Amino acid sequence: MKDFFKVTDLDQIFAFISKFPVIASETIPLPDATDRIVAANIISNADLPDFDRSTMDGYAVRAASTFGASDGNPAYLNIKGSVAMGEHPDFFIDSGEAALISTGGMLPDGADSVVMVEHTEPIDDTTIEVYKSIAPGSNMVEIGEDIAKGSILLNCGQKIRPQEAGLLAAFGHESINVYKKPLIGIISTGDELCPVDTAPNPGKIRDINTYTLSAMVQKTGGIPLVFGIVKDDFDSLHLICSKALAESDMVLISGGSSVGMRDLTIKILSSLSDSKILAHGISISPGKPTILAKIGNKAFWGMPGPVVSAMIVFTIVVKPFVEHVKGLAAGERHLWRLPALLMRNISSSQGRTEFVRVRLLEKDGVLWAEPLPGKSTLINTMVKADGLIEMGLNIEGLEKGSEVSVILL
Amino acid sequence: MKDFFKVTDLDQIFAFISKFPVIASETIPLPDATDRIVAANIISNADLPDFDRSTMDGYAVRAASTFGASDGNPAYLNIKGSVAMGEHPDFFIDSGEAALISTGGMLPDGADSVVMVEHTEPIDDTTIEVYKSIAPGSNMVEIGEDIAKGSILLNCGQKIRPQEAGLLAAFGHESINVYKKPLIGIISTGDELCPVDTAPNPGKIRDINTYTLSAMVQKTGGIPLVFGIVKDDFDSLHLICSKALAESDMVLISGGSSVGMRDLTIKILSSLSDSKILAHGISISPGKPTILAKIGNKAFWGMPGPVVSAMIVFTIVVKPFVEHVKGLAAGERHLWRLPALLMRNISSSQGRTEFVRVRLLEKDGVLWAEPLPGKSTLINTMVKADGLIEMGLNIEGLEKGSEVSVILL
Repeated sequence: MKDFFKVTDLDQIFAFISKFPVIASETIPLPDATDRIVAANIISNADLPDFDRSTMDGYAVRAASTFGASDGNPAYLNIKGSVAMGEHPDFFIDSGEAALISTGGMLPDGADSVVMVEHTEPIDDTTIEVYKSIAPGSNMVEIGEDIAKGSILLNCGQKIRPQEAGLLAAFGHESINVYKKPLIGIISTGDELCPVDTAPNPGKIRDINTYTLSAMVQKTGGIPLVFGIVKDDFDSLHLICSKALAESDMVLISGGSSVGMRDLTIKILSSLSDSKILAHGISISPGKPTILAKIGNKAFWGMPGPVVSAMIVFTIVVKPFVEHVKGLAAGERHLWRLPALLMRNISSSQGRTEFVRVRLLEKDGVLWAEPLPGKSTLINTMVKADGLIEMGLNIEGLEKGSEVSVILL
Repeated sequence: MKDFFKVTDLDQIFAFISKFPVIASETIPLPDATDRIVAANIISNADLPDFDRSTMDGYAVRAASTFGASDGNPAYLNIKGSVAMGEHPDFFIDSGEAALISTGGMLPDGADSVVMVEHTEPIDDTTIEVYKSIAPGSNMVEIGEDIAKGSILLNCGQKIRPQEAGLLAAFGHESINVYKKPLIGIISTGDELCPVDTAPNPGKIRDINTYTLSAMVQKTGGIPLVFGIVKDDFDSLHLICSKALAESDMVLISGGSSVGMRDLTIKILSSLSDSKILAHGISISPGKPTILAKIGNKAFWGMPGPVVSAMIVFTIVVKPFVEHVKGLAAGERHLWRLPALLMRNISSSQGRTEFVRVRLLEKDGVLWAEPLPGKSTLINTMVKADGLIEMGLNIEGLEKGSEVSVILL
């Protein structure tokens, strides 16, 4: 009989995340910073805008000059001048005066609002009628209304989306200090594996995990370092594991799903200098035979060999570790789930958190999740799948029509 | 009084998508193909797996040899041999025989199933007891069970996620024919704009849209081509628009939100060879003053100047066009929306589809969407926002507690 290893619950696994250090930072040009993580708080060094700015085409005025104006009782204002875009107006607006201004223009000194061109009518070259009474501050953005000087623009650990890139541009940050992309070493083991450029002999199959895991690392903001296929023997594996560990910030080794092979992985991980096995088996399905070791400061994962298990373990378990190491703040690590209705009854193995592949189908505006059962070696089930649903440790099953939350793949 | 232009509804805009051709294809290495779009159907040239493969550690047997076996009444089988991983076994399994096999191993000829090691006990070096009756096909994957020879692996227009990359690896596709990344030209106009590396003089602000739009293009799978800031005059604009059109697959020009400027953009777009203005104003808010022209085979967009409007127009209107041009099939263009409850009442302007910025907050397992009102020039509202909610043409408003669907930003 094989030894059943003592499995670790997901919550306990996630508690290990903070044991690993965040990667170092680097300074890169702003146009390269999309999806990168800010490595230090950034404070605004100016007000945005730093002048009162019109948001409409119209006339800059003192609001008081329009009080009481209406269609039947217009106010008459003298045209003092015209604001050129991007220029500081060299005149002053007094009571009873107006200056032609375009959207984005700078209000002249003395003006406190803009009356929209639609609410005015020119009488002659020097006079307009105004048909609307406006309040101070109308149709303009005040100094610092968008961002005040001295406020925090972006927090350390925040991801740079397009809007954050724009914000950095607004404050003249041509380059930006971000966390490096972590290097994630990827090793495949198994004497049955052959490289993608080889025609497999009978009994062999091409290595898939290197490609699925590399792509998942890329999509999580890491850089995959591929170490290829290693033979199932101690010396070969020890050599390549040591090399991968030296060159990477985290290592994933997949395969070796047999008991003997798992024992070998554990033996090698344990033999590496400053090594601690944090988990040997996780209470999830598929993916139970997952190993997490901390070697020096780095996470070293023994991933299951079957492609479905390896992908699910990466999505659910490994990804938050990569996100932590790449500097993403805990509060920013959202795993949004999409509600859907279950299309068929499904059962679950109690005592494990089970992840079921599903395809999403929209019918009459209702989103349905169709379970895609299948062995964990069948990649076609992942190709058909849009996402995963989670069934907790103590759930026996879910009935057709139940509301489920789908983690998109 | 300004001319109110006749606006086009969103549905009509989207009907224009098919007027634009999909970009050409190129062949790239598989590891670079993540998130790229397959440019031709790919057919499997083999079965996967192409041999009967064990999914468990155990013994390859004929199922019939185990029929009737139980804890109290084990079957006794002769050990014929041991399957080496990655090898074609050179022996045959007959009735009453078994061969040791590991997960992923090739079943010997004659065997039709695998009995798990947990359900066996060795008696001596040549005999095992089997405590369980198994059916043919148990604990194995049959030839072609994952993918049958001759079936469609991937369809033209499908996106390559990690699982599709793995599928391609499994069939030996070292390189892959995908659609090129479209080049999207980006131009900013406005005499009030200065470049990011310049300290703005009074009345000027730094160009933000170049950075937000470039990042959005990147995230949509395009390559931004930045043409910088152009002065608001016909000759400069005409020159740069012609250049951008020649060098890009699609062009976005933003700014010029004043009436005069919009007229200039229309005038220039109309003056370019083989030009047709498809829309001049769209019934959305913000973003109404958007222009879509078809010049030759290319889409040329006049985007609003305010950063919030430009981002929303890109997300809702422009993005599906980029996705079409980059080859993504219509059925693959999902815009998943996350349900949430509205935290406050909001009103809407009828006659336009309105997009409201929201922040998402999770409280006691319930997702709330907090509306973030604010002028369309205020980038901080986009930085605070997690998404947008859509209010249809004829909706006057939504009450606190209503269920809304959030488009993630």
